[in-house]
Amino acid sequence: MRSSDSKPRPEGARVSTMAAGLVGSEILAIAADVRERVANGTSICNLTVGDFSPKQFKVPTQLREGIAAALSAGQTNYPPSSGIPELREAVSRLFARRLGLHYPARSVLVAGGARPLIYGTYRAVVDPGDRVVYPVPSWNNNHYTHLLGADGVPISCGPQTRFLPTREALSRVLPGARLVCINSPLNPTGTAIDADALQGICEAIVAENEARRSSGQRPLYLLYDQVYWMLRMPGVEHVTPPGLVPKMAEYTIVIDGISKAFAATGVRVGWAAGPADIIERMAAILGHVGAWAPRPAQHATAALLDDDEGQQQFLDAIMEGLGERLGRLHRAVSAMTEQGLPVEAIPPMGAIYLTVRVHPFGRRTPDGKTLTTNEDVRRYLLDAARVAIVPFQAFGVTGDEGWFRLSVGAVGVDEIDEAMGRVQQALSALQ
Amino acid sequence: MRSSDSKPRPEGARVSTMAAGLVGSEILAIAADVRERVANGTSICNLTVGDFSPKQFKVPTQLREGIAAALSAGQTNYPPSSGIPELREAVSRLFARRLGLHYPARSVLVAGGARPLIYGTYRAVVDPGDRVVYPVPSWNNNHYTHLLGADGVPISCGPQTRFLPTREALSRVLPGARLVCINSPLNPTGTAIDADALQGICEAIVAENEARRSSGQRPLYLLYDQVYWMLRMPGVEHVTPPGLVPKMAEYTIVIDGISKAFAATGVRVGWAAGPADIIERMAAILGHVGAWAPRPAQHATAALLDDDEGQQQFLDAIMEGLGERLGRLHRAVSAMTEQGLPVEAIPPMGAIYLTVRVHPFGRRTPDGKTLTTNEDVRRYLLDAARVAIVPFQAFGVTGDEGWFRLSVGAVGVDEIDEAMGRVQQALSALQ
Repeated sequence: MRSSDSKPRPEGARVSTMAAGLVGSEILAIAADVRERVANGTSICNLTVGDFSPKQFKVPTQLREGIAAALSAGQTNYPPSSGIPELREAVSRLFARRLGLHYPARSVLVAGGARPLIYGTYRAVVDPGDRVVYPVPSWNNNHYTHLLGADGVPISCGPQTRFLPTREALSRVLPGARLVCINSPLNPTGTAIDADALQGICEAIVAENEARRSSGQRPLYLLYDQVYWMLRMPGVEHVTPPGLVPKMAEYTIVIDGISKAFAATGVRVGWAAGPADIIERMAAILGHVGAWAPRPAQHATAALLDDDEGQQQFLDAIMEGLGERLGRLHRAVSAMTEQGLPVEAIPPMGAIYLTVRVHPFGRRTPDGKTLTTNEDVRRYLLDAARVAIVPFQAFGVTGDEGWFRLSVGAVGVDEIDEAMGRVQQALSALQ
Repeated sequence: MRSSDSKPRPEGARVSTMAAGLVGSEILAIAADVRERVANGTSICNLTVGDFSPKQFKVPTQLREGIAAALSAGQTNYPPSSGIPELREAVSRLFARRLGLHYPARSVLVAGGARPLIYGTYRAVVDPGDRVVYPVPSWNNNHYTHLLGADGVPISCGPQTRFLPTREALSRVLPGARLVCINSPLNPTGTAIDADALQGICEAIVAENEARRSSGQRPLYLLYDQVYWMLRMPGVEHVTPPGLVPKMAEYTIVIDGISKAFAATGVRVGWAAGPADIIERMAAILGHVGAWAPRPAQHATAALLDDDEGQQQFLDAIMEGLGERLGRLHRAVSAMTEQGLPVEAIPPMGAIYLTVRVHPFGRRTPDGKTLTTNEDVRRYLLDAARVAIVPFQAFGVTGDEGWFRLSVGAVGVDEIDEAMGRVQQALSALQ
């Protein structure tokens, strides 16, 4: 992916070169496809949205009530541009308590969701033309590199590493790179990086930076997006770069927020922790962009993060709901695998996603169409089984190997069972 | 102001060239000065903040209650990235009803405040190196041009036009420009552009675009920031580019929101209206930036914008409060002018600001310091009168002619009277 600067610039263009080349979300295009069928009266099991349905998963009561109370108390004017001190301190305490990470409040920046903080990290450290390394499948790094005019270096990761990067996969491309982006638990796969793999990557980044320092080169940073870290299946560990390799605190920007852990994507509160000088620049950038978290929600979030017991009760409940859905999906797919159907799943570790491979390639549908691409499979399952899923193409993968993301945040348990019955029938009907 | 690309790029730099060159808000630096004195026990009349104190100005009750109700109703998941249809349609109706502007909902984009929409406009139409024309004094256009690596062309406007631009001032620089930025009512001056001046500018922009079209050049756009338009003194008219020159609808992006009109800077809801193709690109950009308005506040804002009567009651009340404060300030300054003190004010027209010229240049303070710059005057009034004000330097003005912004959103009526008494004494004490 090349910088947008290298593209031709038509003289009559109404929009900027960057804007003209910006690709819309592939998931939104699929969502429009689903919406059209629903509008025509078709009932669809929609496993495409990386979000929660409030009918299935509600935000914590204390968050909702805390926002209303803060509004009544007049918390309606501008928040400080780095976030209210109460929330920055609560994040600092949360990270110390649950992750063993010690960031002072001035190393914490609050913004209107995790997304602005990812954008802020890119803008704070990446110059146009800089190389940004990210594993694929992953979410939206291609779009962020385009927004920056950076040179994206996607690194393919496969099922043998649960689609997560390793030191071996990255070390070749670290020299000359400015930023590495890792997300765990990973959207779209629902898998989590383990301590050994992350430690290896961190050691390679520290070694690269030591080499650079001696030659006066600019450092290499790691954007570590852990926005799903509180949503993990039992027994799955969450590890962090500075937790494994303390020296990484100098080079890591940790991205986090309430959006996923507390089913609060529409409430718009996120935070980042990192080196104070980078955080200060991110605050200046996001202040001009105006991507602040609403002030009443900042107060309510501070209280939620400090309420360890209430928070844990909520997380236990949401993980029970997500675990049941992911487990049922996984068991249904595994049963089909055992029946010899061309489908398999990767055991879920966290987030709201299950990775499923559907690979009936070369087979024919009842109406005589041969399935050859992921897109063929997506359409067949949507038509024949009324189940909507997202191919890994939407996450930067190029090959048609049958990998799909199934998201459970917006569906009920019964819906899943019925939908998997229809998938079983649809796959059995292939010739 | 040159593009950041032309600056040297130190090899050891921890941050991007853009981030390294980004200047922090000058107003925030003054605010820190005030905070320090307050922390030391000094009581300061703070006329620096472009915001409201909730003690003085509360958000509408229906906004507050509407947010709480939307939270209870489960409006907590992702909003559509262009905003909920209910709010886009309510904005469309508001513009038709109150401004006579007819934008379909698809030409309206919702975001987390007016600021992200200004940034989104810049990113959607400006390429690095493009020329952006803006009058000074004005707010933050220097920072936005820096964020874009654009070539900013500040045009000085003086008291003879109430600090607002005219066709004469701009026409020289329109050829070759990509974007013109106009704000009315204007932050920092509290003055509003009149129909004749805006019509002249619009006609020049249309003529420029007609010339460009025939030669295949990219069009010239107008960013029209009207975020203060509902806050006007009695008898002051608000005019819009497409309202005066319909052809301008093709080239104008109108920026607006609840932040100022409804004293709701911390609630984070803004909107833009413009050509559908530009709005669509702005939505794609701001979607990746994640600068969405929180979903519950979108629902509450839609209801507020449709409640014409309740809205008007609120606006009448807030303008009574602002008008009383601006009027008292203005009368106190005018009385000092009549006494022969070196101070004068420009009659307030709207927003929350009064423009005051304090020009005791060459005079000596009781402790023997000669006042020569705006910064000297600012410090003297802070020390001697315990009144904090912002010099026009914070808005891109370079000369020391004694112009200051006085903001009344965070002060009480009695506070103003007492503070003006102290200013009168401090100015009388000069030799």
